[in-house]
Amino acid sequence: MPHIALPDGMPGITAGFAFRPETAKPMRELAEVLLRGPNTLTSGEREMIATFVSAGNSCAFCRDSHRAAAAHHLDGNYALVDAVACDYASAPVSAKLKALLAIAAKVRHSGRDVTADDVARARGAGATDTEIHDVILIAAAFSMFNRYVDGLATLTPADPQAYDAMGARMAKQGYVRTGA
Amino acid sequence: MPHIALPDGMPGITAGFAFRPETAKPMRELAEVLLRGPNTLTSGEREMIATFVSAGNSCAFCRDSHRAAAAHHLDGNYALVDAVACDYASAPVSAKLKALLAIAAKVRHSGRDVTADDVARARGAGATDTEIHDVILIAAAFSMFNRYVDGLATLTPADPQAYDAMGARMAKQGYVRTGA
Repeated sequence: MPHIALPDGMPGITAGFAFRPETAKPMRELAEVLLRGPNTLTSGEREMIATFVSAGNSCAFCRDSHRAAAAHHLDGNYALVDAVACDYASAPVSAKLKALLAIAAKVRHSGRDVTADDVARARGAGATDTEIHDVILIAAAFSMFNRYVDGLATLTPADPQAYDAMGARMAKQGYVRTGA
Repeated sequence: MPHIALPDGMPGITAGFAFRPETAKPMRELAEVLLRGPNTLTSGEREMIATFVSAGNSCAFCRDSHRAAAAHHLDGNYALVDAVACDYASAPVSAKLKALLAIAAKVRHSGRDVTADDVARARGAGATDTEIHDVILIAAAFSMFNRYVDGLATLTPADPQAYDAMGARMAKQGYVRTGA
């Protein structure tokens, strides 16, 4: 049960957003720019980074909804998303994405853990400064979203189908106009 | 030295904001609503919570700039801000603010640490649901801002006077139009 009187039956972050539209607006906009805005990283890659961070923070709602959003950007390839979330080093993704996920893992724990070597490795694998910036901010932003969702003890749907439908909306319609 | 090619000489988060205006916009708006928007918690109280979370995360730039902003909202009372940041349980603040700081401390570590008892204690001390919501989100948002500032290895000014001037701007002009 949520810790405060959130609107009944709304899943995860959508309940917090409905409770406080003033803070929802910039949070939705930040998610939209980071995950769906113009970028040399695909939305599939960015949603996998969001899923990876949320899994590390054990935030089931964010993990499962962004897992589904990532899969919807990747022709339904849930197996790839799960491989990245569970053990990215052995996942069939580019060396560049692996180096960026290593930075995201550091940021999830503390921004102070990121070293010049981590950044040099990402750059050596072809990452641009903007890509490095955006991965640091995606990991930082999900450190916020995860704490918000779990700190309020929002409703976490148990039905996997609920997340697939949510992920489809997140991937196709995005974060500003609609749903989670 | 910053990990990526941020604009020269800009302190802390302002460098990240200048590097990527698209993400700066919603981040500035979120800070403005949370710390300066209409609220039954004063801006001084909210800036003290931001300082407390940033101190816990050892983010020197955020800690010292929000410490100064809090002091500027509190007639220059740096001693009160430091008392809250160092040991809030013994600080001369209300039982309600202490109960909210206890929730912020939990959220800083993980949203999942917040218990029904923590929330009942805050409510018992007079906190409203919106105040509880906002404290959870302030702690979550500074878990983002702190990681962003340190993940980029932004410039941390050594001169205490720099923070006092910054805090004055943050308190008086806010986060949307200007500086840090």
